Amino acid sequence: MESYSITERTRVSRIPKRGVYDKAQVHAILDEGFLCHVGFVIERQPYVIPTGYVRADEKLYIHGSAASRMLRTLDLGVEICVTVTLVDGFVLARSVFHHSMNYRSVVMLGTAHLVSDREEKLDALRRFTNHIVAGRWEEARRPTDQELKATSVLALPLQEVSAKVRTGPPLDEEDDYALPIWAGVVPLRLRSAQPVPDERMLAEAGVFDTGRLSL
Amino acid sequence: MESYSITERTRVSRIPKRGVYDKAQVHAILDEGFLCHVGFVIERQPYVIPTGYVRADEKLYIHGSAASRMLRTLDLGVEICVTVTLVDGFVLARSVFHHSMNYRSVVMLGTAHLVSDREEKLDALRRFTNHIVAGRWEEARRPTDQELKATSVLALPLQEVSAKVRTGPPLDEEDDYALPIWAGVVPLRLRSAQPVPDERMLAEAGVFDTGRLSL
Repeated sequence: MESYSITERTRVSRIPKRGVYDKAQVHAILDEGFLCHVGFVIERQPYVIPTGYVRADEKLYIHGSAASRMLRTLDLGVEICVTVTLVDGFVLARSVFHHSMNYRSVVMLGTAHLVSDREEKLDALRRFTNHIVAGRWEEARRPTDQELKATSVLALPLQEVSAKVRTGPPLDEEDDYALPIWAGVVPLRLRSAQPVPDERMLAEAGVFDTGRLSL
Repeated sequence: MESYSITERTRVSRIPKRGVYDKAQVHAILDEGFLCHVGFVIERQPYVIPTGYVRADEKLYIHGSAASRMLRTLDLGVEICVTVTLVDGFVLARSVFHHSMNYRSVVMLGTAHLVSDREEKLDALRRFTNHIVAGRWEEARRPTDQELKATSVLALPLQEVSAKVRTGPPLDEEDDYALPIWAGVVPLRLRSAQPVPDERMLAEAGVFDTGRLSL
């Protein structure tokens, strides 16, 4: 069982039993999600911006427009924090104080760089696309050179990484278990609804199979 | 229609038509979500931490343990960024390049402070609890003085705020509309699954009605 080294910056200090550093568990969380929040600093002001991502081995790829201020800033080698959060459920305790959420989150610290190698960039975009819809890269029109230039891909090596996980039922004060109040977990799931075809879609394109989504 | 003032730091510069500064629209996004990502800086390293929140008028309340490093850091008056993101759908275009997501996000910049007034703190916790499950504050055991002391509530005034919204179908290159590739939007929704009662719950507590959730 391989783990990320714990540093002073990634140690889960509040409720340490929720800390997870095992690589396989961290990878599983990252592979289930698709949206991250990227934190960076410009003139002492932190910014937190949502964006898509995909993991490949020990790298996290995020991508966006080459014109994005965020991506241009990040390529300057500034320190960033990328966080992925999956919310699994509301935890309803008998007391307000012990209400909680079940969740799995990963916090990644480090320095990202723009991917300039054409093959690595294409591979990252392929993974990125197929991470959302299996096989989509193979069926959609692939990027032209110009489109590839207009797209930036950033890579963050997974080095200083920790996860935090809460699972299970509420934990109440012993006396409160005698209260006739509903207590338990309400699981939450991100689900797709009925796909909405584009008005200009050709009929021969058929029907979208939501089983291809990685939800 | 009242709006937040646009500053250099909150202006949506990439794809400006997606920028939203209207207070009513920003409030609606904040009231639909319940999870935010808080960005703050310690020794030049940004951190992005997920946590719950609730809005009340022009304040965003976040809460956590009084022992949390984040909350203690934030009360020092440091600059923070709080971001709320709702993902509404995957946007599948005919070309890989034009794939996108429909989303609504709010970015809030400013300085937070701990709420020390007892009444304001109780009111924030009541709102926080009922924001997740309608009427929960009224039915669960309310906090003791000791529990109240162990809970910190931070308030961030909504001043430097902007939202970014993408809606609607994919926008492809004109030539690509002739391609027989499925294109459209796959809507995404956070949904609750069957509630799981705690093993020690008294039968007289009944059944949980998921209609009380603000999802």
